Amino acid sequence: MGKLRYSTSMSLDGFVAGANQGIDNPLGVGGERLHAWMRELALWRREAGLDGGVVNESTRVLEEEDDGIAAIIMGRNMFGGGPGPWHEPIWSGWWGPNPPFHLPVFVLTHHARDTLECEGGTTFTFVTDGIETAKALAIAAAQGGDVAISGGASVAKQYLAAGLIDEIVIHLVPTLLARGIRLFDDPQNAVDTYDQVSVTEAPGVTHLKYQLVH
Amino acid sequence: MGKLRYSTSMSLDGFVAGANQGIDNPLGVGGERLHAWMRELALWRREAGLDGGVVNESTRVLEEEDDGIAAIIMGRNMFGGGPGPWHEPIWSGWWGPNPPFHLPVFVLTHHARDTLECEGGTTFTFVTDGIETAKALAIAAAQGGDVAISGGASVAKQYLAAGLIDEIVIHLVPTLLARGIRLFDDPQNAVDTYDQVSVTEAPGVTHLKYQLVH
Repeated sequence: MGKLRYSTSMSLDGFVAGANQGIDNPLGVGGERLHAWMRELALWRREAGLDGGVVNESTRVLEEEDDGIAAIIMGRNMFGGGPGPWHEPIWSGWWGPNPPFHLPVFVLTHHARDTLECEGGTTFTFVTDGIETAKALAIAAAQGGDVAISGGASVAKQYLAAGLIDEIVIHLVPTLLARGIRLFDDPQNAVDTYDQVSVTEAPGVTHLKYQLVH
Repeated sequence: MGKLRYSTSMSLDGFVAGANQGIDNPLGVGGERLHAWMRELALWRREAGLDGGVVNESTRVLEEEDDGIAAIIMGRNMFGGGPGPWHEPIWSGWWGPNPPFHLPVFVLTHHARDTLECEGGTTFTFVTDGIETAKALAIAAAQGGDVAISGGASVAKQYLAAGLIDEIVIHLVPTLLARGIRLFDDPQNAVDTYDQVSVTEAPGVTHLKYQLVH
């Protein structure tokens, strides 16, 4: 317990998002191919308000992904509101009055603001002094539970390069994006080897779970 | 039958060799970590003239790798003899009079020379007009069997980018090399998606078999 965990879909050539990411194209060019395996699942479709879908080996992997998570870290871009200082009317996230997290959420930003309390138990705390502080605050808030990094890729990359992620799940998709954002491209990685915990083959994807070697 | 196949160890960050590859350091910096899973195997140790070793899920994967291979393609660096034109005394490979291939081998080079016939059934044919010709010659020589690309990485990368490899096996090792030669880094990939054929979890490695989508 008290682990920092990160899960992401990744292409065979190492990209977690395609090129030209933006508001209108949040996954970047070709990025939707990274998530095709997920959109087939009844579990995912139900959460998205859709009927149908399948149950397969990926279902259990996705269920485990949420299991035991008691706090969340995200980057400023994922929280939204544009770059730079906060301005009126102050942005309160993409998710409306009752965000789907129902947990303490720590938002990494360079621009301080007060904690935002929402319906349904979600609180957004804005952290301006870096990834180690955000990890410490989130671990404390999780009270023995685990902390998930929910994105975006740049935040996850910083945590990975610093060797601060205890458990990574990579949903490896046999597609080549050729351009975009690579998860692992920091020549200063603090970690050089992970332990392989489990491998799950599923339609269109292989789920690879690794943990930090201590 | 008649497929072009390639197998390689790859780090989690996508490298098939470390930085500063050379005669004295053929795998590059950190590259030995890519092959640790293989060096443990009794199968590998026996071929290297060593005792001991284990039998595990990787043993079958390695056995399958050789199964049905009836011709080989390799790059000039793997054949050796230095860059540039051939000169006297003419280089005849690293392997002595009886090379361990016992098959027709096609060597990609810019410098023509006559076919070299060795003991034990190995012949080296030097191909100067590119990867498609080498594939066609090797497929013909294989007479219905498959063709293996045995390396190096730059040859494999050219075939991959051109969409000419029918089956790829990646031995994915949970290590980060941070620098070196990436298998997939060509933004002009002719292929954007492979079919996932099989996944095998083994100690310290996951074997991922993919085939070209036709």
